[in-house]
Amino acid sequence: MSYVPSQTLAERAVAGDLRAVGRLISRAEASTEEARAALALIYRRAGRAHVIGLTGVPGSGKSTLVAKLTHVLRARGEKVGIVAVDPSSPYSGGAILGDRIRMTELANDPGVFIRSMATRGATGGMARAALDACDILDVAGYSTIIIETVGVGQDEVEIAHASDTTLVVSAPGLGDEIQAIKAGILEIADIHVVSKCDRDDAHRTLTDLKQMLTLGALTKAKPTWQIPVIGVSSYSGQGIEELVTKIAEHRAAFAGELGLERRRRVALFRLLKTAETVLLERFGSGAALLAPPLAAQLAERDADPYAAARALIDATIRKEYGHGLA
Amino acid sequence: MSYVPSQTLAERAVAGDLRAVGRLISRAEASTEEARAALALIYRRAGRAHVIGLTGVPGSGKSTLVAKLTHVLRARGEKVGIVAVDPSSPYSGGAILGDRIRMTELANDPGVFIRSMATRGATGGMARAALDACDILDVAGYSTIIIETVGVGQDEVEIAHASDTTLVVSAPGLGDEIQAIKAGILEIADIHVVSKCDRDDAHRTLTDLKQMLTLGALTKAKPTWQIPVIGVSSYSGQGIEELVTKIAEHRAAFAGELGLERRRRVALFRLLKTAETVLLERFGSGAALLAPPLAAQLAERDADPYAAARALIDATIRKEYGHGLA
Repeated sequence: MSYVPSQTLAERAVAGDLRAVGRLISRAEASTEEARAALALIYRRAGRAHVIGLTGVPGSGKSTLVAKLTHVLRARGEKVGIVAVDPSSPYSGGAILGDRIRMTELANDPGVFIRSMATRGATGGMARAALDACDILDVAGYSTIIIETVGVGQDEVEIAHASDTTLVVSAPGLGDEIQAIKAGILEIADIHVVSKCDRDDAHRTLTDLKQMLTLGALTKAKPTWQIPVIGVSSYSGQGIEELVTKIAEHRAAFAGELGLERRRRVALFRLLKTAETVLLERFGSGAALLAPPLAAQLAERDADPYAAARALIDATIRKEYGHGLA
Repeated sequence: MSYVPSQTLAERAVAGDLRAVGRLISRAEASTEEARAALALIYRRAGRAHVIGLTGVPGSGKSTLVAKLTHVLRARGEKVGIVAVDPSSPYSGGAILGDRIRMTELANDPGVFIRSMATRGATGGMARAALDACDILDVAGYSTIIIETVGVGQDEVEIAHASDTTLVVSAPGLGDEIQAIKAGILEIADIHVVSKCDRDDAHRTLTDLKQMLTLGALTKAKPTWQIPVIGVSSYSGQGIEELVTKIAEHRAAFAGELGLERRRRVALFRLLKTAETVLLERFGSGAALLAPPLAAQLAERDADPYAAARALIDATIRKEYGHGLA
């Protein structure tokens, strides 16, 4: 099979070719130079879809919630793209184990596109790749895109926040270890979701969150939006319709001038993440050759990491740009 | 209180002043320019301690194991430093919630120093800061240092691997979600530990791991070291002594010439992580001023992230180094 140019894949993706969508996402993930012109054009065409970021600690029921949300959105006529930046995603049995789709209910619906992205092997570039994937789905006609990330690790949390509407999922009855991780992600929520609300102990989780919100502990002043706490049960279906309605309300509230600041924050995040990728790539290719002798010195403690790092950066920039530093 | 120079803190840390150790670790974490000369000197003096990396998924019993290990190491006369890069660490009730020590048994032992490090707010710099913390503990006289990281997220896993001996903790009976995360971290183990071996279902976890090792699925050729699988119970104490003995054997096996390759790999990782920190800091300070107008254009989709990123990098390097690119 000959190599199909990314630009061709982009045209096919826009025409709704699912295979082309998948291949282009792979190229975004691999961060190939060849794909960038196509991804750049796609970015400029995108921006119509509503991007929902969804995060929560392991065990909070994120993926089940994504499935239920998707069903309701489908019933309302939306085409739904799902980007799961989650090594434990059940869509794939762990992206690390491949990209096979297990969640057959959704997978058999042509109005749903599910993509798992690996979180390992893509330092820093994960955010950039996930957001590129959203744009590809956007131009391919998916009107709602859900980015699901596991709420552990700074990058994962920031990706969920780089969206139009951010959901944070909490679940009752998780251990202390999990609860502590959770504390770090609550403040990014536009909407709090408490899953497993068929359980007796869900009430306390709901009350705790509402109390924290009342105390102003979880939010900077957002006079335009009252952060709701919605209890859902994937088992009984309770709360899912209400959640979809709240998401639509949030979208409407931030669609116009009011959302400008938010869109600029997301754009700034994306710019810096993309710049980090490009900078570290340029640096990495140059540094790979220059680093080993410095590392050998470092291993003997005949140098220190800061001086060695400065030497490496200076030598790399000299090499890359053909002149010394001022 | 006047500002104590980092160099003074370093001298006090070497003399065993615990408060100075803590303050210097905070400065390493904050990545202050002023601290670097002191950290550089500390690096060159360090290298005597045995650094144990310990990782595992949430709920695998890492922290309890660290406590049990520490007891046995203390009984053998070691001074133990613990660096917990884990937002859910019980030492602090979550580093994100502060740095208070809750694990009183260990905390009251002057031969043990416990430090939790936040995993958020330190993009990329977490590895660098954690390894700086190990050096500080090393020169302060701690002979064994345990870095505990939660086995979710690439940085966390790599930090645990940047050690003399890497332990990966598995536990029986965790859900599918957790098991899938686990698959990504098994290959870095020098020693596999199966916790909660008082449970009936631990046998299967032990057998599975041994089988994977036999099949060669988890290891590149390491003819010098047969990776063991050790079952432990923090409840009954089973296996902890055996684990400490295995750790000592691994240390001995890689102490000399044989460990050179490993020490160089760790040094290379550290060099690149430090260089990334320095590079992104230099870039970030310049880019912070130049990025917002580009981000505003990007938010309107009047530009694309790649072109904007290149423009930002070029403008930043021009500004930082006072000339254009070749």
